[in-house]
Amino acid sequence: MDTPLNFDGRVPTIDSSDAAMLLLDHQSGLFQIVKDIPLLELRANVTALAKAAAAEKIPVITSASVPQGPNGRLIPEVHQFAAHAQYIARRGEVNVWDNPDFVAAVKATKRKTLIIAGTLTSVCLTFPCISAVHEGYRVFAVIDASGSVSQIATDVTIARLAQAGVVPIDTMAALAELQKSWSRPNAMEWAQVYSGAMLHYQLLIQSYQKAQQVARRAN
Amino acid sequence: MDTPLNFDGRVPTIDSSDAAMLLLDHQSGLFQIVKDIPLLELRANVTALAKAAAAEKIPVITSASVPQGPNGRLIPEVHQFAAHAQYIARRGEVNVWDNPDFVAAVKATKRKTLIIAGTLTSVCLTFPCISAVHEGYRVFAVIDASGSVSQIATDVTIARLAQAGVVPIDTMAALAELQKSWSRPNAMEWAQVYSGAMLHYQLLIQSYQKAQQVARRAN
Amino acid sequence: MDTPLNFDGRVPTIDSSDAAMLLLDHQSGLFQIVKDIPLLELRANVTALAKAAAAEKIPVITSASVPQGPNGRLIPEVHQFAAHAQYIARRGEVNVWDNPDFVAAVKATKRKTLIIAGTLTSVCLTFPCISAVHEGYRVFAVIDASGSVSQIATDVTIARLAQAGVVPIDTMAALAELQKSWSRPNAMEWAQVYSGAMLHYQLLIQSYQKAQQVARRAN
Amino acid sequence: MDTPLNFDGRVPTIDSSDAAMLLLDHQSGLFQIVKDIPLLELRANVTALAKAAAAEKIPVITSASVPQGPNGRLIPEVHQFAAHAQYIARRGEVNVWDNPDFVAAVKATKRKTLIIAGTLTSVCLTFPCISAVHEGYRVFAVIDASGSVSQIATDVTIARLAQAGVVPIDTMAALAELQKSWSRPNAMEWAQVYSGAMLHYQLLIQSYQKAQQVARRAN
Amino acid sequence: MDTPLNFDGRVPTIDSSDAAMLLLDHQSGLFQIVKDIPLLELRANVTALAKAAAAEKIPVITSASVPQGPNGRLIPEVHQFAAHAQYIARRGEVNVWDNPDFVAAVKATKRKTLIIAGTLTSVCLTFPCISAVHEGYRVFAVIDASGSVSQIATDVTIARLAQAGVVPIDTMAALAELQKSWSRPNAMEWAQVYSGAMLHYQLLIQSYQKAQQVARRAN
Amino acid sequence: MDTPLNFDGRVPTIDSSDAAMLLLDHQSGLFQIVKDIPLLELRANVTALAKAAAAEKIPVITSASVPQGPNGRLIPEVHQFAAHAQYIARRGEVNVWDNPDFVAAVKATKRKTLIIAGTLTSVCLTFPCISAVHEGYRVFAVIDASGSVSQIATDVTIARLAQAGVVPIDTMAALAELQKSWSRPNAMEWAQVYSGAMLHYQLLIQSYQKAQQVARRAN
Amino acid sequence: MDTPLNFDGRVPTIDSSDAAMLLLDHQSGLFQIVKDIPLLELRANVTALAKAAAAEKIPVITSASVPQGPNGRLIPEVHQFAAHAQYIARRGEVNVWDNPDFVAAVKATKRKTLIIAGTLTSVCLTFPCISAVHEGYRVFAVIDASGSVSQIATDVTIARLAQAGVVPIDTMAALAELQKSWSRPNAMEWAQVYSGAMLHYQLLIQSYQKAQQVARRAN
Amino acid sequence: MDTPLNFDGRVPTIDSSDAAMLLLDHQSGLFQIVKDIPLLELRANVTALAKAAAAEKIPVITSASVPQGPNGRLIPEVHQFAAHAQYIARRGEVNVWDNPDFVAAVKATKRKTLIIAGTLTSVCLTFPCISAVHEGYRVFAVIDASGSVSQIATDVTIARLAQAGVVPIDTMAALAELQKSWSRPNAMEWAQVYSGAMLHYQLLIQSYQKAQQVARRAN
Repeated sequence: MDTPLNFDGRVPTIDSSDAAMLLLDHQSGLFQIVKDIPLLELRANVTALAKAAAAEKIPVITSASVPQGPNGRLIPEVHQFAAHAQYIARRGEVNVWDNPDFVAAVKATKRKTLIIAGTLTSVCLTFPCISAVHEGYRVFAVIDASGSVSQIATDVTIARLAQAGVVPIDTMAALAELQKSWSRPNAMEWAQVYSGAMLHYQLLIQSYQKAQQVARRAN
Repeated sequence: MDTPLNFDGRVPTIDSSDAAMLLLDHQSGLFQIVKDIPLLELRANVTALAKAAAAEKIPVITSASVPQGPNGRLIPEVHQFAAHAQYIARRGEVNVWDNPDFVAAVKATKRKTLIIAGTLTSVCLTFPCISAVHEGYRVFAVIDASGSVSQIATDVTIARLAQAGVVPIDTMAALAELQKSWSRPNAMEWAQVYSGAMLHYQLLIQSYQKAQQVARRAN
Repeated sequence: MDTPLNFDGRVPTIDSSDAAMLLLDHQSGLFQIVKDIPLLELRANVTALAKAAAAEKIPVITSASVPQGPNGRLIPEVHQFAAHAQYIARRGEVNVWDNPDFVAAVKATKRKTLIIAGTLTSVCLTFPCISAVHEGYRVFAVIDASGSVSQIATDVTIARLAQAGVVPIDTMAALAELQKSWSRPNAMEWAQVYSGAMLHYQLLIQSYQKAQQVARRAN
Repeated sequence: MDTPLNFDGRVPTIDSSDAAMLLLDHQSGLFQIVKDIPLLELRANVTALAKAAAAEKIPVITSASVPQGPNGRLIPEVHQFAAHAQYIARRGEVNVWDNPDFVAAVKATKRKTLIIAGTLTSVCLTFPCISAVHEGYRVFAVIDASGSVSQIATDVTIARLAQAGVVPIDTMAALAELQKSWSRPNAMEWAQVYSGAMLHYQLLIQSYQKAQQVARRAN
Repeated sequence: MDTPLNFDGRVPTIDSSDAAMLLLDHQSGLFQIVKDIPLLELRANVTALAKAAAAEKIPVITSASVPQGPNGRLIPEVHQFAAHAQYIARRGEVNVWDNPDFVAAVKATKRKTLIIAGTLTSVCLTFPCISAVHEGYRVFAVIDASGSVSQIATDVTIARLAQAGVVPIDTMAALAELQKSWSRPNAMEWAQVYSGAMLHYQLLIQSYQKAQQVARRAN
Repeated sequence: MDTPLNFDGRVPTIDSSDAAMLLLDHQSGLFQIVKDIPLLELRANVTALAKAAAAEKIPVITSASVPQGPNGRLIPEVHQFAAHAQYIARRGEVNVWDNPDFVAAVKATKRKTLIIAGTLTSVCLTFPCISAVHEGYRVFAVIDASGSVSQIATDVTIARLAQAGVVPIDTMAALAELQKSWSRPNAMEWAQVYSGAMLHYQLLIQSYQKAQQVARRAN
Repeated sequence: MDTPLNFDGRVPTIDSSDAAMLLLDHQSGLFQIVKDIPLLELRANVTALAKAAAAEKIPVITSASVPQGPNGRLIPEVHQFAAHAQYIARRGEVNVWDNPDFVAAVKATKRKTLIIAGTLTSVCLTFPCISAVHEGYRVFAVIDASGSVSQIATDVTIARLAQAGVVPIDTMAALAELQKSWSRPNAMEWAQVYSGAMLHYQLLIQSYQKAQQVARRAN
Repeated sequence: MDTPLNFDGRVPTIDSSDAAMLLLDHQSGLFQIVKDIPLLELRANVTALAKAAAAEKIPVITSASVPQGPNGRLIPEVHQFAAHAQYIARRGEVNVWDNPDFVAAVKATKRKTLIIAGTLTSVCLTFPCISAVHEGYRVFAVIDASGSVSQIATDVTIARLAQAGVVPIDTMAALAELQKSWSRPNAMEWAQVYSGAMLHYQLLIQSYQKAQQVARRAN
């Protein structure tokens, strides 16, 4: 149904205590065929998700599609910033959900809310989203941390995911739903997450600090 | 559900006598990270909503996200043109609906139809929209008076809001549903609202007046 | 509901024998503020709808929003190519459906399927679409024969219309559903309708005729 | 309904053993009026679908709209790469589903899942999609292997198809759902399908082979 | 030299009493491969040049490149609106200046200033421009009444033409240099030339007339 | 020559003590046909030039093309912010330099450096630029304070102006060459000039002031 | 100088009997970083140049930049379609003109007119262009058969090349200057060159042949 | 003159032994107003220039425009990667060349070739470029390491710089002219410079290393 599935009366937002994050097929070769989003933004978004999962201690599971072939290796940032992430190798399956080890790893997290990103959007992200929602998970598909071959492919995929009951979401919303509030001990860690994801925001912080420094010196 | 929620058989349009307007987080820093709409248009749209609320005496509630930090202050136009607006400070909550004072202020208006705009679209607008619709409000999300970090983020957000039962709407539609008719005492005030929101319309009025002046002199 | 409303088991396509066409507010001033579609294409699309209605003898009702003011007069092509169209003046109502004369004219056609186009898309098209679907009509909203102030406004409006049970459609589909087949007496009239709507198609016909002429001469 | 129709509890993905492919009206004249996708990409996508059907031995049915007129002949690649495809001539019907021979050919495949592409997207693809879903088929509409007259027409059509219960899909997703896994005898044939569809992927393979050749020589 | 050549101290603008206009290869097939300018605008620009030449009684010479082949026939508007134009057939030469009949026809006009437009910009326009400037003509190349295969091809061509001493110009400038003043007997004819070239201008005139009509009635 | 003309060994920059500013044909009707620059930016740029001329007491001369017709009246901002500007009526001449009163007014300023902006770029700006450079003036053409009918027309015009010895310049450069230094008594007036021309810069100032205010309060 | 250098009074066009073609660094890795032109178009343009050189028996020299590293191998089409091309290996030099073997090979052709294309435009094309023009060659730089990292890099490079006396040119112009006329024995070979370079042109030919076939059958 | 000035018969390329690099006004506030290039690319380009200067031991001089105000501080990357850079404070001058300390520092390098980048392109880059070329320097203006307020401003500025005798250049060309050859001791350092400047290139290297690793393991 064209409704966020499996929420059963809950508000259709992310409950971080119930969430696991799946980061799929962000590989050096596949990134070359991404055309719907500037690659620097895509990498920044994926990195920000990894950092956010680390900050909130959310389980992360990764995988790669035939990394020994032209698809290439996982970009190093994923495991660099989410050091706790678990990598599941697969045996050629395009849909990571067709791999029993992967599904078992997801189940082992005991989480029922999945935040998924994967390259390509219409394939490596979409297939496990549809599979997972079909098996009762609440699924958030992070479109701008995935990457597809064209704008039109992304437009089509957003419509397909919504139609299938998956919640389409962007990186900023995913981060903010995990953070929830600036009144928290690790607020500075969160400022760095945003700062890495958005250069414009990082510049705001630099300008802010400089302006305050000038004001203080003037006192 | 993927239907405008909470209308219960009513036509899913704005009833101005039942409407309150929430203008959220239109701040000098956050505006710098908006990339889906030209900033001059965004400011013009926000300003037009404020003027329209003033013209129709619709309650307006505003808030800002950590304005003492890099997010910056509210742009002055909001309270300048909606002098009756009530500002609610919050304590770091990203979702304004997580702030009890804010929710109380909304309830105090006794209105059940909410017209909401907020920067960023996918965060500061979307979160309270989903919360409010979940609590029984009829919610209109003014996408082009909000602003997100990319076109793709906006596309995703429109789909998510529709899926959640929120009505996505643009500024022109929001204005026109409040105005309803040109046969009204304050028609000139409305002409100025549109004129400020659309330079092309303002030029039409200038050309129209000039043409009539020439015609009259020729008589 | 987010389903084409009022079809009651019928295929959600246009039945030309049950259709009326509403062409609203295509005015010289309002056209200046259209920014989501090249104006030459918009005029060609509106003109093609008018011609198609004439070819198939479908009732056409037109109206204009305050044409004595800056909004300007109806572009002449509408009544030029649909000479049988009926013009309904209104008294300042933004939503043409708020005008009882207009609703009466629609009812008088005895048609229950409405093909509607209007400038602006989010206002003059959307409001009567939502009103009509609420009153039991099957409504097709011709987005690219309408025109809005921005791409983002159009994106928002497509989602809103679909959510409200209106069928969003483009001009080519509307024409083709009315035509249904090239095996018909007025096929040449239809070729001219398409030819006027799409310069690329007109050039195809010119090239085709030239190629055949050359081939015949060579025989 | 705005849900993938006729899946009856199945996951809404393509089951290749139940699928037939309909490739409609990819004609030399109609291609000239396609403006929503670069023509080289469109042809590559159509060709890839034909190859994939051949690789997986999926029935293919083709047709053309008035090919003896300005619409022109089918591009040769369709039957070249899907040599087993069956061509059904029609008698002027715009909607191929209005042609009884065509419907009979579809039925004869005994498949209930249809993968459809057709030029124009909003007409030659959309009409049979809506007809087929109405008659109980599970329908996947391959948007970027079709082609429409404008981006706005494509946006409208995606919304309309989703609203009608058709699954919108892109070429990459359609290919990958048919392939399912790289661990299969004809993996190299699939590599060539992708390689032809995406020049960036073909270059990846060339670079990969060169890098390995250099490494081996160095040993 | 990278200077407008052959002006010898004159202001490098068009002297209409010395000008001839060359309209080359605006053909139904070649138009299909134009991608740097919307085709409706291109046709409007070419048509406006033809009308302007007729209004100012400037000699017009036309030609076509292998019109009996896939390049197709001249679009009919050229000779329709410049009825006095002289058509010169050629014998396969790509550069019209390689055809002695054509050069003779140009010489016969006794004009030394040439206004040239031709499809494709980088070929059918550029080659005769460079040839003519080499033979002492003052040459104005009307870029947006020509049409090339890509934006990049047009950018390159503007640089090449300027480098070769040809003056690059747009249609509006070419028209206005021919018109020179609104204080002239055929001012209304010129208003129609602009009106046909720019729909936005035509709408301005419609709005202007309507506004004056309203003002006069009110008197 | 393709060199900034008439500088005779001077650095080709603006000497504000020798400069006069010509603001031409910025009219309510002509603005409707501008398509190469967002209209809000164009108006902001023209306004900034007027303010800068007022700040530096540079002579300003304005004119309008047939303002009693569809071209419409001058936008009010020009004379509002450059109250000392002199308006010269003309008698239908397209090129303002063909009007002897205008040329006399320019001469009366005794300035030999001209900063010119005018709508349309390729016509109302370009013609007087070429005329003036021919008569020995040093001419700066402010492209983004003018406005043309298309991007391609602007590209062509930049090349033509450079070829003719005119210096093409943007508004920011024109402002900064007039300002020269922030160490000057009217630095705040200049901050407001930039602030009005660039909303992003205005927001920077708002954020800067807020950050300093917070820092001071914290002391 | 900003003039096509070394023409010494000749018309600055390509003399095919004096031309050699240099195709540089079109490599599988470097192609991945090209962003100013769709890769399918770039490959088609490079291929067309190779075919044209073969058709006209023009010497072709190729080279690659560190092909044993990440830059990757030459795309196979170059030598496939210009079987007579001579490959010169180099020793790490970025500018191919710094390699004495390459310069010797160019000299050995005895041609003084060079048609050069190379990836990246601003590097591998530009450096040898500037070197060669400095040594007295007449140089044509084929911008859209090269490829750079951004549109802005291409814009900058066109200006730099023109300033240095190199003639910037697009693929279509390069082909047409080599072909010169359709009245030649190998006209069909040329039709295939264009057909491969432009899918729209290939479709024109398909439509043309079909139309003639229909006409002949009807006779 | 519209020729690269001051080369006096030298090839107009960068001689690294004679070059100094000026990196101007890359500040946290000014970056917010850059709109002609994605900010992530701009920062990567500036950083790459700094690294290249460090690799080749080229003198670097930096400056900032009123960094104590809203323009903000220099982005930290400049001095981080070019630790040897010399910072020159100025006293409000917009054109850094108006500051005697800065000019003295340039002279002290004894270099006559300047590679300059600065934000904004049309102001902070252009003014010192024109000043320096006037004083006999050979000047290369790195357009895509600068940043302007709009695409149109950049287009204008490229034309103005070329007209003034400055060589417009992009970052890739500037890097490659400094590197000259891969056969050099610090080739790996250069690979990292490119890798940081172009994510697509970095991914190529990752894929290359992975492919070789796989090949070696297979041996």
